[in-house]
Amino acid sequence: MSITTGSEASMNAPHAAVRQKATDAVLASLQAELSRRLGDRVATSAAVREQHGHSLTWVKNQPPDIVVYPRTSEEVSEVVKLCAAHEVPIIPYGTGTSLEGHVNAPYGGVSIDLSLMKRVIAVHDEDLDCVVEAGVTRKELNEHLRDKGLFFPIDPGADASIGGMVATRASGTNAVRYGTMKDVVLALTAVLPDGEIVKTASRAKKSSAGYDLTRLLIGSEGTLGIVTEITLKLNGIPEAISAGICPFPSVKAACDAVIMTIQSGIPVARIELLDEVQVRAVNLHSKLTLPESPLLLLEFHGSEAGVQEQAERFGEIAAEFSGGPFEWATKPEERSRLWQARHDAYWAAKGLRPGAQSVATDVCVPISRLAECVDATKQDILESGLIAPIVGHVGDGNFHVQPLVNTDDPAEIEACEAFVDRLVRRAVAMEGTCTGEHGVGQKKMKYLEIEHGPAALGLMRVLKQAIDPHNIMNPGKIVAL
Amino acid sequence: MSITTGSEASMNAPHAAVRQKATDAVLASLQAELSRRLGDRVATSAAVREQHGHSLTWVKNQPPDIVVYPRTSEEVSEVVKLCAAHEVPIIPYGTGTSLEGHVNAPYGGVSIDLSLMKRVIAVHDEDLDCVVEAGVTRKELNEHLRDKGLFFPIDPGADASIGGMVATRASGTNAVRYGTMKDVVLALTAVLPDGEIVKTASRAKKSSAGYDLTRLLIGSEGTLGIVTEITLKLNGIPEAISAGICPFPSVKAACDAVIMTIQSGIPVARIELLDEVQVRAVNLHSKLTLPESPLLLLEFHGSEAGVQEQAERFGEIAAEFSGGPFEWATKPEERSRLWQARHDAYWAAKGLRPGAQSVATDVCVPISRLAECVDATKQDILESGLIAPIVGHVGDGNFHVQPLVNTDDPAEIEACEAFVDRLVRRAVAMEGTCTGEHGVGQKKMKYLEIEHGPAALGLMRVLKQAIDPHNIMNPGKIVAL
Repeated sequence: MSITTGSEASMNAPHAAVRQKATDAVLASLQAELSRRLGDRVATSAAVREQHGHSLTWVKNQPPDIVVYPRTSEEVSEVVKLCAAHEVPIIPYGTGTSLEGHVNAPYGGVSIDLSLMKRVIAVHDEDLDCVVEAGVTRKELNEHLRDKGLFFPIDPGADASIGGMVATRASGTNAVRYGTMKDVVLALTAVLPDGEIVKTASRAKKSSAGYDLTRLLIGSEGTLGIVTEITLKLNGIPEAISAGICPFPSVKAACDAVIMTIQSGIPVARIELLDEVQVRAVNLHSKLTLPESPLLLLEFHGSEAGVQEQAERFGEIAAEFSGGPFEWATKPEERSRLWQARHDAYWAAKGLRPGAQSVATDVCVPISRLAECVDATKQDILESGLIAPIVGHVGDGNFHVQPLVNTDDPAEIEACEAFVDRLVRRAVAMEGTCTGEHGVGQKKMKYLEIEHGPAALGLMRVLKQAIDPHNIMNPGKIVAL
Repeated sequence: MSITTGSEASMNAPHAAVRQKATDAVLASLQAELSRRLGDRVATSAAVREQHGHSLTWVKNQPPDIVVYPRTSEEVSEVVKLCAAHEVPIIPYGTGTSLEGHVNAPYGGVSIDLSLMKRVIAVHDEDLDCVVEAGVTRKELNEHLRDKGLFFPIDPGADASIGGMVATRASGTNAVRYGTMKDVVLALTAVLPDGEIVKTASRAKKSSAGYDLTRLLIGSEGTLGIVTEITLKLNGIPEAISAGICPFPSVKAACDAVIMTIQSGIPVARIELLDEVQVRAVNLHSKLTLPESPLLLLEFHGSEAGVQEQAERFGEIAAEFSGGPFEWATKPEERSRLWQARHDAYWAAKGLRPGAQSVATDVCVPISRLAECVDATKQDILESGLIAPIVGHVGDGNFHVQPLVNTDDPAEIEACEAFVDRLVRRAVAMEGTCTGEHGVGQKKMKYLEIEHGPAALGLMRVLKQAIDPHNIMNPGKIVAL
């Protein structure tokens, strides 16, 4: 990428061009050029467009004008160059499992669907890393890796694409042990707003060779470039895995047990909180008989002896905080059933109020404030008259609330939005963040200034302006309108 | 930070102003203004200036014009605003343990010495984090934490300041288990080139709320801003620690044992390679009797049983690759002596050729290429007629070479520079990096294009240009001349 600059006038009002939709004439011309290059891998049907403007949760659909399906980084680059020439917005699309409106196209434009980029380019066993195209999903990758005794640990509920997980800095249930996407990506290939293809780093496990372009792009939600290839760290499948559940008399007791577990250095692989509302939903949905109180779901990874020791120590800690009994799921199928139920929590919650729309939101606070934050939030839910189960990656202080809303009732929508607003302000006041893992998308934009303050937000704007001066990359997300 | 832009002319030649030293008149005026604000915390003596233009290894001294000692982020901000107004370069200074000329002042300017910023602002036991000022050194921090049963794991050899470790994205012997600075920093407070004070993130363990400003600054070597406060993740002091040594018949055998150890998921805390030249140096310097062959130094952290199990497993792996005997250092004082010897490797190496200057350099490659890279490098050392011991953080594929050079002999300097050039090109050709942990400074600048290519380097320049358009922050480092 080279340093370019427009006239002062365009620098001061750089976004005007894309705040309007492109004209029909521009789109027709662009579509013709795209078709010349990609043949039938260009779609404009209403159904396809609508699908590509759709989030998993309730966000108003805003379809793109055109959807393209490139097969290589070079094709992505060509598409970007064409869009840049016409100043038409570009929205990258993985599997559409976004929760905050990341794939919406408020100004129309071209959705770049990466689902044909499915190659696992290389697996380096000795280095515990692999190189994949952005359209590979996490389950596809793990399927590919299984025979080699390796796995990719990052595990949001959905079977998201690796590219999408990079874009939102995703994490999930394993993050307490294995980190988030920022920790497991070694290098990226990305297409910049001018169409240039950039490789951010080498395969070395660590480097001090210049600015961290890799982590600049992780979490940038397609607003700075389109990630097309990812080099990922992998882990060996643990020799032993054990899982269990442990009920607690209160959220506070469960959180205190979590804090003690982490402080004791027990390398727990998963430690998940479900509140009693969510447990009830899961029992109904997955036909289980879990105790309907605040509940921790746990998983331990290690050697046979190590796993045994971890579980025993956790059991002692749980008992100290009036938790228990700590019950094992020793058989693999029991364990799978438990975690499948956890991953189905979103759908289970939806079942609590058939016909309602689901508004998934998340915040993250320092773990010392977690019990207080969850308790205050539960009180708020009660006072708001909402149905809103809570699940949390509590080892990280991250929790999700899922209000179930009748979106035909403006009063309910308003009550829900006011609730999310209070939730975010509560988390930020506790030195937390407005989103631990879902990302900003459209719905958390207004909270960035509350969280970061004007100086940091200004710096984010400087970055966006410098890298994408015409605001063609996923406009209307993070910092650029 | 707000988006500002100069005229087009100044954008196209933004660095001209600072490629010359400031005039005496400008400096006199600046010094007077600095003294008005900081009183006697402004120094201009030759000795102080020379000390602040000094790297630990052999890099030609380039002193700043003025040295200041601020006490707070606000004072740093005032200094930066004054320097910005005069377009005088700013060089942040920690403890001066840089190895690549980071603190040199090729265009003079103001060295901001952060050694008075020594406060440990907060330790949050339950959250396993702390907030410190940039001048706190890693040993000072660990001293402060000891009574709480916590420790900060990042461990370069020198007792560097935390701010300096952020600046170079430092790591060290524990990185294989605990990560590098990019993994352990939760948030930063920094002063931007316009004097604005920015807080990059909250204390939440993870966040998806916008661009990763924290990691943009980590490794930026003071070229984008001056880090003044750091929020760090901490770890509990392990219940049990054991250490040991294990000789191998060859570098390849040692590296193969390391690969198998990592692949097996043994959570080794330290796994360090010393080549036979370095072992000899260490024996002489630290009065030890280590076997003078390629040697691994190891440390295991965990529960009593866990540490025992890890060590046994490693012993089996070592034997598979003809290594051994694996000898324990069970007593804490033996262990301390061993690691002190490792940390003194730099000084021990210097002792191999009294009077010679030390040129420390490092590269990092995927671990599968490590043995090949080290062997080729040893062959190169032999053919070059250099004395150059090797030590490596081999769990990460990172190793250091330390040529000992008579810097009065231009032929030796040339031979050494040619050797470093081949070393870097070899590492990059093996999908590695020109520096694993020392940073770019002045001496690795020329290798950034070889490693990253023009597109990525161009993007780095765009970032520098956008954040520091007048190139006043540590000019002559990373991407800006």
